[in-house]
Order: sequence, then structure tokens, then C-alpha cells
Amino acid sequence: MDTKLLDVATGKVPADAVIANGKIVNVYTGEIYDGGVAICGNTIAAVGDVDYCIGEGTTVTDAGGNYITPGFIDAHIHPESSDLSIRPFAEAVLAHGTTSIMTDLHEIGVVSGLEGIEAIIEENEITDLNMYFVVPSHVPFSPMLETSGGAFNAEIIKKALEREDAIGISEVVGHYILAGFPDLMESLDTVKASGQIAAGHLPDMKGPAMNACLAAGVSNDHEALDGPEIVERMRGGCCAMLRESSAARTLADQVKYVVESGVDTTYASIVSDDLHCIDLARTGHLDHHIKVALEAGLPFVKAIQMVTLNAARAFELERSIGGLAPGKRADVNIVAGDTAETFEVKSTWAAGKQVLDNGELLVHYPVAEHKPCILNTCTLLNPITPDSFKIAAPEGASKVKVKCMDTLPWIPITQPREVELACVDGYVQCDVAQDVLYIAQVERYGKNGNVGKAFMGGFHLASGAIASSVGHDNHNIIVMGTNFEDMAVAVNHLVDIQGGQCFVENGEVVKDIPYPVCGLLSDLSCEELAAEKDELNAALAARGCIIPITCMFLSFICLAALPTLAITDHGFINVLTMQIEDPILEVVE
Amino acid sequence: MDTKLLDVATGKVPADAVIANGKIVNVYTGEIYDGGVAICGNTIAAVGDVDYCIGEGTTVTDAGGNYITPGFIDAHIHPESSDLSIRPFAEAVLAHGTTSIMTDLHEIGVVSGLEGIEAIIEENEITDLNMYFVVPSHVPFSPMLETSGGAFNAEIIKKALEREDAIGISEVVGHYILAGFPDLMESLDTVKASGQIAAGHLPDMKGPAMNACLAAGVSNDHEALDGPEIVERMRGGCCAMLRESSAARTLADQVKYVVESGVDTTYASIVSDDLHCIDLARTGHLDHHIKVALEAGLPFVKAIQMVTLNAARAFELERSIGGLAPGKRADVNIVAGDTAETFEVKSTWAAGKQVLDNGELLVHYPVAEHKPCILNTCTLLNPITPDSFKIAAPEGASKVKVKCMDTLPWIPITQPREVELACVDGYVQCDVAQDVLYIAQVERYGKNGNVGKAFMGGFHLASGAIASSVGHDNHNIIVMGTNFEDMAVAVNHLVDIQGGQCFVENGEVVKDIPYPVCGLLSDLSCEELAAEKDELNAALAARGCIIPITCMFLSFICLAALPTLAITDHGFINVLTMQIEDPILEVVE
Repeated sequence: MDTKLLDVATGKVPADAVIANGKIVNVYTGEIYDGGVAICGNTIAAVGDVDYCIGEGTTVTDAGGNYITPGFIDAHIHPESSDLSIRPFAEAVLAHGTTSIMTDLHEIGVVSGLEGIEAIIEENEITDLNMYFVVPSHVPFSPMLETSGGAFNAEIIKKALEREDAIGISEVVGHYILAGFPDLMESLDTVKASGQIAAGHLPDMKGPAMNACLAAGVSNDHEALDGPEIVERMRGGCCAMLRESSAARTLADQVKYVVESGVDTTYASIVSDDLHCIDLARTGHLDHHIKVALEAGLPFVKAIQMVTLNAARAFELERSIGGLAPGKRADVNIVAGDTAETFEVKSTWAAGKQVLDNGELLVHYPVAEHKPCILNTCTLLNPITPDSFKIAAPEGASKVKVKCMDTLPWIPITQPREVELACVDGYVQCDVAQDVLYIAQVERYGKNGNVGKAFMGGFHLASGAIASSVGHDNHNIIVMGTNFEDMAVAVNHLVDIQGGQCFVENGEVVKDIPYPVCGLLSDLSCEELAAEKDELNAALAARGCIIPITCMFLSFICLAALPTLAITDHGFINVLTMQIEDPILEVVE
Repeated sequence: MDTKLLDVATGKVPADAVIANGKIVNVYTGEIYDGGVAICGNTIAAVGDVDYCIGEGTTVTDAGGNYITPGFIDAHIHPESSDLSIRPFAEAVLAHGTTSIMTDLHEIGVVSGLEGIEAIIEENEITDLNMYFVVPSHVPFSPMLETSGGAFNAEIIKKALEREDAIGISEVVGHYILAGFPDLMESLDTVKASGQIAAGHLPDMKGPAMNACLAAGVSNDHEALDGPEIVERMRGGCCAMLRESSAARTLADQVKYVVESGVDTTYASIVSDDLHCIDLARTGHLDHHIKVALEAGLPFVKAIQMVTLNAARAFELERSIGGLAPGKRADVNIVAGDTAETFEVKSTWAAGKQVLDNGELLVHYPVAEHKPCILNTCTLLNPITPDSFKIAAPEGASKVKVKCMDTLPWIPITQPREVELACVDGYVQCDVAQDVLYIAQVERYGKNGNVGKAFMGGFHLASGAIASSVGHDNHNIIVMGTNFEDMAVAVNHLVDIQGGQCFVENGEVVKDIPYPVCGLLSDLSCEELAAEKDELNAALAARGCIIPITCMFLSFICLAALPTLAITDHGFINVLTMQIEDPILEVVE
């Protein structure tokens, strides 16, 4: 028992810090009233009238009549989607008032397994970001359809769940429940027995299918697309996560529906899932999401509840975080404004330590000395040459009909398009005029030398090749180009720099961004990386590319779980049938 | 994994039971909509449109357009206060739609220790009542001021917390936190480490004192007296339990305040704490409390939430019970009416088994074969005679001023009254005309033969003596009378029958009710026991007694924790100073 904490609470001993003269946003009662917060060490000792806690040695901060809220919680985020190492990521989100995240570090697991995840968790330990570990329930997503570096089975999941910071399993796939995948079923039993949480990944689950997922023990989900899907989850006692990710901006519509339907919002939180470093640097994190929600009509207190108490509830952590009350972790924000126009996080305390002061970040963490298990993760079994990417035409054909996959412009969901392509020297040719490019994924763990090949549309890139070692859910090297030579240079360059992203044109590297950690993460600051990304994206836009966050979209084109088509190192995937397809449909001439 | 459950959810296999054609009260969203509930074994498989779950072998119940709610949960009740053995208690509460309780079986622990509690839990196993065990945090309440049969220290509490049905510790006393009682502090650390709940007993805790209790980890409390105290607890993230007990009817006022203040009621539940068998037989359980709450202005859905989801939340059990959703325990009520006048539980399912059908209880449990550890618990070290109760007057005194304790008529809280009493043959005499009776508590565990003695007012009993082996928090034999002879007969009779209650007049037992289990519980049914109690109370009322539930009030007069005075086997207790006092203040003549 922390007896000093009790002594501060009773007023026997002065608080370490007091935030005074604010308006308490009480997420438990939904009230707002004048008051302050008294802190002892990393814990809140008193809330409301806290003048009695001020004494010798107490650091007093005047909230200036602004709101005092709990620190924000993102209950479903993959920090890797920012392409930032965990320390600059922590700096970036703390600067926006986020003090806790729940994350599976799934991408790290895909490349470097549990050992890699544990290395990242260790790197985070010196930061002030409170990171809960939700153990990946499957690594990779589709073991039969892709090659990954790390792989999880029920035994590894069980071992990971025994970590003190482990709070459950992540991304429990609805279709896998319906199919009764043995490792998943075993892991669901494990978390049920331990009282931990099964976090869902339940796109398209409705009615009976959703009933089965809930019956299997899934108690939260972030994959609802629209308002009715959000409400269906809430009705089932499933903590519904309204999502505003860099790849799918669905929050405003979801909020509007929830507000109009008048449902109790206790079971609704707001998450970002995948947050690009440019969004994080320029737009913000949950502070931005609150603005979107306010703009969409959500009352202020309910918006705050959705990024604090309700987010904690999604993992049964209400007794530790998510509210301003004695005994809770001292995660506190001072916030100005309660409208979309005026809302702003001014100052932040994380576990009792002030990390943000009137907009100025007070913490800067040193670049981590990365463990070997998360470095040098790109190994080619066979050399990559232009020939590696060629798709052979049927003998004698001069023109073929192929199934090209096109991404939607606003979300990286793919749809088939039938096109006719010429064949030259026995190989099918791309056709920039028709917006049909080569796309391939190159296995990079030195395991089998696979190269999956297909045709891609929707980006409108007119020349060169873009490559990236970030590709869900295997993080092999994805490369898309208008010619084989540039594609080969790009892939080989990424192997040379051990991961990252690059654009190559006429055999020259126009722009590259190294990702030394797992080929996924940069050690730059969020601002610096955003500037690098701008440069890369500008080079692509100058060549006609219409997708602003090209590499993030590409990373989802590899995901054999996202409808309706995908490319992995195994080949061209029909996501609906889970089969590998030949992109060539028929000979035309 | 229960694969049949998933198959029922998806519609592959028919449900065991379907409750159809109802109005679902969805406690998660606060909505009411048409639908039904499909059950597989002891678990809900589907909610809403469940027609697809009906097939060969499905038992279909037509809800007749009535409401379908989750089974009710009493998150703080001492079954022993009904004076019923656990099986008739289970029958009685199931008949009113209560399917789960959280209880510490503290009274059993006081008499027979953890072994006794475990015997009762085992007796309950054949019933359909879902009983969670909240380990008593102190047995007895005041070890320095009373003698008990069982006693708990931190080690026993830790052992008990390892039971699978243990969900936390109970009745964590605010003043003991402030005093830093070592066993309690250790137990609070234990539950914090295990993620279990610390349930409070926080009367009079306000401001800094309440902050300290919350900081110590207490996360629910049932001791708020009025509305402002309820809201203070909720503001602190503490699950506030609005209480309607047979000894303290405070629910209506608390509800009115909560409704008027407009606070979010997520953190409010309704409990009964101590429920007398007469109330249980004639008035009901939580179904009655709902009526009180509706009458006081609480909206229907919020009232249902307070006896279901919110009650589950007080112990972080929302993922198991408290709502109608796939995967939850199939505890379901069909309810008619949504007003104080019309509300009625018609039918009930507990863990998928129908136990109540249109008001008719379908289950009748056999009387338990009680384990020896909970039988024959009354042993006197020394014989009790009329002399045992005499209070010696100061030498030569013919009249003394004494401090008499008077109970309030509506709650067994005592207040001092100074009275002058005559002394005869060297002993102070009671004075029926002034409503001053003898009261004593006789140690009954054969440990020390203590007899504590004092003077009692407020009951207005005019002749005879009433004795009971139920007396918080030690359950020694409490006896109150107008003369020593009847008092001695009464106590000796209770020892002869090994516990119970009796009224004696002119040396004859007018009425007795045996309590074979721990001297606390009867094996009669609730109706039968209520009839017996009526007879006893009528005998007392015929002799002028104005307290309708005399023995329940007497049981609290022994409680050295309830202000301001008490009687234990150690003597006359000043609860505020925790000291034993001499009831004789001064010699008058």
C-alpha cells in the first residue's frame, strides 16, 4: 500500500503536484464542475476541492479556468503505421494528450516474432506513454497465403499472455471463429480462463455471424464501417470502437448515426487503428478525432468519455485509467475549448509527470539502441533482377485479358477490373495508359525467395517504381512500377538499406526513407519523417500518382484479409475464396 | 470452446430454448425493441431476431409482448439477514427474478470461519442461484471489543481469494483504511495484485477521507445514506450502491436526488444489503426495489440497468452477467409493466433453466444435510442464571444516573439517554415505565463466558424477555428483558435448541424459532419462516414493542461499528471512542 498516497489524500502530507482552477470533466457522472486535481507520485490523490493538498514542495499549475480531462486513451492503435520507432511515436502522441494506448505491435511480430515485440516494449519503457500489450491472435494473418518472419501459435500466445502488461488477444478474426481455427479457439479459451480480453477484428460480421463472434467471447471491435454496425456491436455488449484511421475516415458518419439514434454511448470509444506520421504531425491524434466527433454533433462530455473512460472499459481497465479520481494513474490533460473550432490540448501529465506545457512538449527521448532481433531483417534468398517480375504470357499469345486489381481512392479496398494487355517476347506488358502497373511482393526473410506478381490500378503512377518493406500482413517487400528495371533497382536498394521505402526512376533512386527497425520504423522524429514522406509523396504525385499516402495504401494491398484482391509473396490472392489466382484470364489474340 | 454454442448462434443447430415475442430491454444501449432470446445450455446464443434459432427440440416460450430483461443481480446482500438457509433463500429470491448475488457470507464466517462459509457455498451448488463470493475483509468487525467463533486474518483472506468463485474482498471499512490496519492493508494489496475488487463499507466518508478510501483501491460502496453521498461516490469512479434494506429504506430519496441531479447513472446500482424474510416473502426483492425506484422517478430502463448491468459492473462482471447478449449467462426475466404500479416479474431463467413460470416457482430444493462445522454452535462456558445479568450498583446507592441507549424507530442507530434508575439489593433496576430494559450479550462459543450488560430503550417492550443468537458482528446471544429470570430462561432455551430466537414470559417460552445452522439460519421456507416471525413479532407487539422487526434491530444493537452505542459480550461500547463504558454515570441518592 502506498501510504504516502493515502496521507496526501487525507491532507496529512502535501501533494507533489496540484492542477488548480480548472473545470473538471467528470467522465463517471458526465458532470462539469469547478475544481482541481492533486497528484502524489504517479497517482491521483484527490479531485475537486484540492486546496487542502497544497503545501511545501507542491508544484501548482493554474489551469486558468480551462477544462481538466483524463489523459486520452487509444484502445486500438498500431504504432507501426506511423512508421515511427516507438520513442518518437510516444513523443508524438503525448504531444496531443494521449497517455495510454492498447496495442498488439502486430507488425513487429510479423517480422521479428515475440522477441521483437518485447524489444519494442522495452524501448518504450523509458517513455511516459502507458502501453498495454494486446497479444496478436494470429501472425501472420494468412499463413497459407504469405511468408512472414515471425509466426505465432497458441503456445506462443499463451506465453505472451503471461506477461504482466498483457491484457488480452488482439484482432480476433470473425471468419476464423466461424471456421473454428484450432489455435484461435485455444487462445480464446486461454483468455477466458485468465479473465483477459478478446479484441475483435469483425468486418462484415452481422446477425448470426456476429452472434457467434460474441458468443466466442469477443468483447470489443474496431471494424464496424458505419453507424448501424456500430450500434449492432453495442447492442451485443461489445465495446464498439468508432474509427478514424489514416486509411479509413469513418468517424463522422458513425458519430452522426450514434447521436441520432440516441443510444447510450457507454460502450462506444474512438480509436485510430492506423495513424500515418503525416496525420500525426499535422492533424493530431485523438484530439483531432474529438474535433471530428464534436463537428458531427457529439456532446462534449460524451466525446471526452469516448477517448477516456469508455476506451478503458473496452479492456476492463476503468479501475486504473480513464478517469479523474483518487487511485487512478495521474494522466491528466488541460484542454481549452469544447467545440470543433476551439478544442485544444494545452498541457498533459502522464503518470504524474508533466510532459506537455501549453503546447510545448517537455520530453525528448534518446534514439534507442535497438536489439539485434529487430535489425537487419531483409534477406533475399535469390538475387532480384528485372526478370524476377515478368509474368509469362501463354505461348503464342500477343494479347491477353487479365484481372487487374484497382484500389478505391479513399480506402485501400480493391476491386477487380478486366483489361486487355499486350504480350511482348512471351511476357505480359503493363499499360500506363490504361493505368495498369506491375505489382509484386518479394519475400524478404531469406526463407523461400518467393515473388508474387499481379497487375495494379488506381494509383495512376506514370513512371518509375515505388517499393516498400511495409506490407500487411507479412511485410515482405511490395513493389509497384511501370517497368521491371526500376522495380529491381528499388527492391535491391531496400535490401541494401535493410528496409524502408524508395522511389526509383530510370534506374536512379529519386528518394528513399530508411526504416532500420524491422524494415518498418524510422528513428526520425514525427516532424522529420513527415517531411521525408512529403518529399517521397511529392515525387510520386509529380508522376501522376493520385493516392496521397501511396505507401500506406500499398501496405494494405498485400493484406490477404482485405477485400477483394491482394498480392502476397505467394501470388495474386482472391480474398473472398482465399485462393491464389492467375491474373491472366484468357488469350485475346 | 463451446462449439455447440457457436453452432446455435450461427443457426447450424437449433437452440435449446427460445423466448420469443418480447420487447428486449437492452441495458447496453438503453433501447427497447421487439425481439427474443435464444439459449444454448446455460448461455445466451442470440438476441433480437432469433427465429432462425428455433428448430427441432427447441422449447419456445411466448413472452406475450412483455419486456425481456436480464436476470437481476444484487451486488451487495447478506443472505443470512433473511434468517433462511441458503437453499430456501435461493428459492425465495429466484421467485422474484434475482439470478445472481454477490455476498460475503460474513455472518457464517463470524460463527464458523471460512470452513463454514465454504459449507454454505457447497449447499448452494445444487440451486440455480449464481452466487459470487466476496471474501470478508474482517471477521469479526471489532476483535478487541467482541468474541466471535471464526476470525479472519490476512492469510485466511488470501487463501479464500484463491477460490475460483472469489471476486474480491467485502466491507472494507473506511475508518480501518484511515487507521492503516495492517491485515486490511495487506488484503488490499492482495486484491490489487490479483485484479480483484475491494468492496467498501464507507459510512461517513466524505472529502479527504473518501479520497483516501478510493486511493486505497475501494471501488464500490453501499453505505451512502443520502443522494449527495451517492453522487460523491460516483464522481470518484466508485460504483455507488443505492440501498433499500429492511433496516434502512433510503432508496427513494437517493433515487430522487440522482434523477434531479441529472448525472450519468452508469456507476449506480441498487442493492438490499439486509433483507428480512418477511419483506422477502411479502414485498419482494429487487423487483420491489425497482418499483420504489420507478415511483421515485427513475426511468424504466435506468432502473433495469441498476439491477443488472450496473450491478455487474460494480464487480467487473459485465462480460459474464448483467445483459442480454450472446455469450452471457442465460439469466433472463420476462417482466410485465414498466411503472411502479404494473411492474412484475412473470418468468425467470437462471443459467438457461426456467425457474419461474408466470409467477409459479418451478424449483424446490431439498433441505441440505448440513456439515458439522455449521451445526451445534452454541456452547456456554459457565451456566447462565438470573444473576448473570445483574448490574451492581455503587455501594450504598439507592438511585443512580445511567446512560441508556435508545434505538431510533426506523433504523437501528442508537443514541444515549440519561435516566435515573433505582437500586435494589445492590443492583440497578430496569424501569419499564421509563422504557429502560436490561440488555445483555452472552458469549456462546465456549471461549470465555463473557456477559456484557447495559440498558436499552426504544423498543417499549413491557414484559418478558426476547433473546436471539443473531447479533452482528459476533453472533453471541443477545437478550433484552424486563426481568432477569425470563432473560436466563430465554438464553438457556436458545442454547438447548442450539440457536434461534425466543420470547419468554413468566418463565415460559411463549414462542421460539430454531436456527440450527450457525444459530443464524432456519431450514423453513421463506413463507413458513415469515409466518413464524409474524407470530413472534405479534407476541412482542402484544407486550407493547413498537419495533416491528425486533430481532433484526436487536442484531444491530450488538454492532460495535454502528453509532453511537452498542452492547457486545465485552460490555457497553461507545462506538465513537471504541471504548467499553460503565453504563452507570453517577450516584443520585
